[in-house]
Amino acid sequence: MKIVLATRNAGKIAELRRILAGFDIVGLEEFPSIADVVETGVTFEENALLKAHAVAQGSGLPAVADDSGLCVDVLGGMPGVFSARWSGKHGDDVANLELLLAQVSDVPADKLTARFTCVAALALPSGESRVVEGVLPGHLVRSPRGSNGFGYDPIFVPEGERRTTAELPPEEKDAISHRGLAFRGLAPIVKQLVRS
Amino acid sequence: MKIVLATRNAGKIAELRRILAGFDIVGLEEFPSIADVVETGVTFEENALLKAHAVAQGSGLPAVADDSGLCVDVLGGMPGVFSARWSGKHGDDVANLELLLAQVSDVPADKLTARFTCVAALALPSGESRVVEGVLPGHLVRSPRGSNGFGYDPIFVPEGERRTTAELPPEEKDAISHRGLAFRGLAPIVKQLVRS
Repeated sequence: MKIVLATRNAGKIAELRRILAGFDIVGLEEFPSIADVVETGVTFEENALLKAHAVAQGSGLPAVADDSGLCVDVLGGMPGVFSARWSGKHGDDVANLELLLAQVSDVPADKLTARFTCVAALALPSGESRVVEGVLPGHLVRSPRGSNGFGYDPIFVPEGERRTTAELPPEEKDAISHRGLAFRGLAPIVKQLVRS
Repeated sequence: MKIVLATRNAGKIAELRRILAGFDIVGLEEFPSIADVVETGVTFEENALLKAHAVAQGSGLPAVADDSGLCVDVLGGMPGVFSARWSGKHGDDVANLELLLAQVSDVPADKLTARFTCVAALALPSGESRVVEGVLPGHLVRSPRGSNGFGYDPIFVPEGERRTTAELPPEEKDAISHRGLAFRGLAPIVKQLVRS
């Protein structure tokens, strides 16, 4: 059976297809009649479930969605669910990253701890759902480095690494990333619920 | 004895002079040799103490400072200590306010709870210090109203009020404001420590 990935973000689609490679996955572009969901949730879980349920209902197929973001400790866990619209313009990666760096410009480097968080949700047309959270702890650097990934990847260095997540090859990033953890955690649940 | 108010913010100076009217208060402009303190703290208390200690040491007089900001619940308590530089440009009230409204534009109105918080600090040249915190709970509105106050006043409505803090006359605002609470709480401590 097909599973719909509830995102139009090209970067996320590429990542998720690698991670859920064993499944017959289709993108949201095959369902043009499903309107974009406004992310009114204030937690990753709320938004992931909003999107997964909307797509499962609209497509009649099991749907997988995620909500993820960068949580900076000195910013009280923000940008968090607002990561993709931090500068006020949805999806402007450069503006979002530059604003974040400007906001913390006076904060000492040793206080710039942060974590990438992802909540992956599976929703069935029946209304049943599951969520799994993945977290990648690390810290921010003030000078962007690397051209892989998207979003805040160029300024985030995972714990135990010297490279930013934008400097990691895709396979290395998947192995440790918040999204990799969440989706690998969800994979056995998808197998169980979708095939039963 | 004189007390130095450790701020160059005209709005704050006007408020604090009304609240601490019984004291012989001088502004930081009388001490041009004291450099501006970089607010490297990540809490209101840290920044208020940084500023009060720097001015007490630089002037040889008791110094009062505050750090204050708007804490929005869905933003994890931010802008918080970053309130005056939320847009990345220090002191640009309009840019800060517009960015905040853009960030929460998809958040339902009933989730836009917030509070103004102020920590007032007294530091003596001896190194002794005291802090008092004041909090004004309320919620955000999406359309700025009123021309009193500064910062985020035009979009903040205190609990039990219909007017924004920018629509309140100065005396009414002082009576309930976070800064009024903190500085009135500090006033007896100033009297005790400075006169003894």
